[in-house]
Amino acid sequence: KRITVLKGDGIGPEIVNEALKVLEAVAETYGHHFAYQCMDIGGIAIDQHGTPLPQETTDACLDADSVLLGAVGGPKWDGLPGDIRPEKGLLGIRKAMGLYANLRPARLFPQLADASPLRREIVEKGIDFVVVRELIGGVYFGEHKTEEVDGELVATDVMPYAEHEIRRIVQVAMEIAKKRRSCVTSVDKANVLDTSRLWRKVAGQVAAEHPDVAFSNMLVDNAAMQIVKNPAQFDVMVTENMFGDILTDEASMITGSIGMIPSASLGDGTRGLYEPIHGSAPDIAGQDKANPIGTILSAAMMLRYSFDLCREADAVEAAVAQVLDQGLRTADSMADGCTLVGCRAMGDAI
Amino acid sequence: KRITVLKGDGIGPEIVNEALKVLEAVAETYGHHFAYQCMDIGGIAIDQHGTPLPQETTDACLDADSVLLGAVGGPKWDGLPGDIRPEKGLLGIRKAMGLYANLRPARLFPQLADASPLRREIVEKGIDFVVVRELIGGVYFGEHKTEEVDGELVATDVMPYAEHEIRRIVQVAMEIAKKRRSCVTSVDKANVLDTSRLWRKVAGQVAAEHPDVAFSNMLVDNAAMQIVKNPAQFDVMVTENMFGDILTDEASMITGSIGMIPSASLGDGTRGLYEPIHGSAPDIAGQDKANPIGTILSAAMMLRYSFDLCREADAVEAAVAQVLDQGLRTADSMADGCTLVGCRAMGDAI
Ligand SMILES: CC(C)[C@H](C(=O)O)[C@@H](O)C(=O)O
Ligand SMILES: CC(C)[C@H](C(=O)O)[C@@H](O)C(=O)O
Repeated sequence: KRITVLKGDGIGPEIVNEALKVLEAVAETYGHHFAYQCMDIGGIAIDQHGTPLPQETTDACLDADSVLLGAVGGPKWDGLPGDIRPEKGLLGIRKAMGLYANLRPARLFPQLADASPLRREIVEKGIDFVVVRELIGGVYFGEHKTEEVDGELVATDVMPYAEHEIRRIVQVAMEIAKKRRSCVTSVDKANVLDTSRLWRKVAGQVAAEHPDVAFSNMLVDNAAMQIVKNPAQFDVMVTENMFGDILTDEASMITGSIGMIPSASLGDGTRGLYEPIHGSAPDIAGQDKANPIGTILSAAMMLRYSFDLCREADAVEAAVAQVLDQGLRTADSMADGCTLVGCRAMGDAI
Repeated sequence: KRITVLKGDGIGPEIVNEALKVLEAVAETYGHHFAYQCMDIGGIAIDQHGTPLPQETTDACLDADSVLLGAVGGPKWDGLPGDIRPEKGLLGIRKAMGLYANLRPARLFPQLADASPLRREIVEKGIDFVVVRELIGGVYFGEHKTEEVDGELVATDVMPYAEHEIRRIVQVAMEIAKKRRSCVTSVDKANVLDTSRLWRKVAGQVAAEHPDVAFSNMLVDNAAMQIVKNPAQFDVMVTENMFGDILTDEASMITGSIGMIPSASLGDGTRGLYEPIHGSAPDIAGQDKANPIGTILSAAMMLRYSFDLCREADAVEAAVAQVLDQGLRTADSMADGCTLVGCRAMGDAI
């Protein structure tokens, strides 16, 4: 299998290196061969090629069986104009690869229950849901413009959604729910937005084709409350791009282990892009302090979703659980009685 | 002072009646006279007049010294098309009155610390911030349309922001911060949206005019995390309409007392619209179960912001604290050792 590797900026290179170690251990143990091609994206690509997403990078991703990404961005590139910012590279590759479905699990590791900011009574009911975020539509990809009108600047972002874009993502949520607890919550703002009213209509149609899945709608403001109040109610949440961005970060925070949460971005085939949900953490870059687990679990998702290597994915996830059981922790998740290790040592242990 | 009263739907009438009781107690004790004019808005207005915001209602609001609102909406009107939904009445009156600044305090009542879904260690650091939400711009008020394109429906919502709209709301946040802990966090999504980049630029300009206020920017996804992780870091948060909708609901939930949170919507003069942040709770409407405290504290905000009656506002807030100290609770906030009371009894006690 050919894997294009996009290490990116900040802690990106360190955490990806640990994930590659783990993939190599899998290859050796189970007799597979993975070929890696490292390409530039984000800030490093701006520095090296003057653009956050060079054509060679896009080509290499489209040509690969799957893509593993670290993180992009940092203060160094913050002052740049909109279309040569590191984030544009990430948005561009999502779009170029047609990755409309972003899967972000919000799962509490039992070993880390005390790291959740929520009360024990809430945590004990369990936190184990997946947010399915639409990733290449909505206000992220509508027209953006800033122009002078009557002597002042007016900026405008356009949020479009077409029926087929909604149908396919809700369809993904349904399929995932069937492998879990068969419950889908579709999140929108149908009392205000036309896109949300269309979303609700199409989601309802798709739900009707899946009578075995319990389906309901929830307003986004209410969802932001319910994630904190009673996360156990959720199994699969499906929502549009911008709402998904906000709610997935909130959802990952309540698990208390944002450094450990992986994500998969999928399109119509099996090729996907896998990345931890956290950012590039420029403040600790290069110090061997970062938590590589989010990236390692992203690699496990790649094994499962892109390569259909479920046994191998299970093995990686079990290794992570075992190392956590042993009490090894990177600085972000250090707790009483645990052993502090660096990024490399954590990768070695897993 | 002439107050236009918009009771609205669901529990709206019950909770507003208790707030009027409290205003009358204030009038009697301090020798003021308040004249009330009740008008229809939301679902009831659709039923009575065929529109969620009849012209007479708008006129009465524009003619009053201030407006007190209960809540709008309910399942009865959920199937209606976009422009005759109850919420349109609320959005319409905000716009007609020019209420661009929505103030939503997220404050933990010490008596209710145990009701917060957050861990004690986090709660103990204190939760006391105000979200200043832009209320009549952005995607709420840009063009909404749904049309057929290439044989399928495509919906579009437009999110516009002009410099003057950003400047005036950030200005409000600065003034509020000066009366508090002098710290403003501006929340945007500047790595994706043009409106957010303009927001960040203008907010920075306004901040530069207020060197005595500590100012910083935060991305909205990060803000959704930080509210749960470390709410004590915030004093005043300022953000655009849609982000504000989501973050204020999340912020109110972490206080554990959503039924108790008031809000003020202000424009350029002293006239404002005051309403609890919770909804119309149709499931418990007419059962004397609702919590009137959010509405009563909204009336206190009216005394303070629209009528400059600070002593009177303090007295109402002190009465609420005293009743909570006595252990009186409505069903939504009932706890061990407290006394369950209905909506009317709570209003009487305050
Ligand atoms: C970096 C940014 C553009 C990106 C997004 O908003 O999608 C990130 O926050 C994410 O959630 O992957
Ligand atoms: C009812 C709805 C239109 C409204 C909004 O989104 O502004 C409500 O959620 C609020 O926050 O006041």
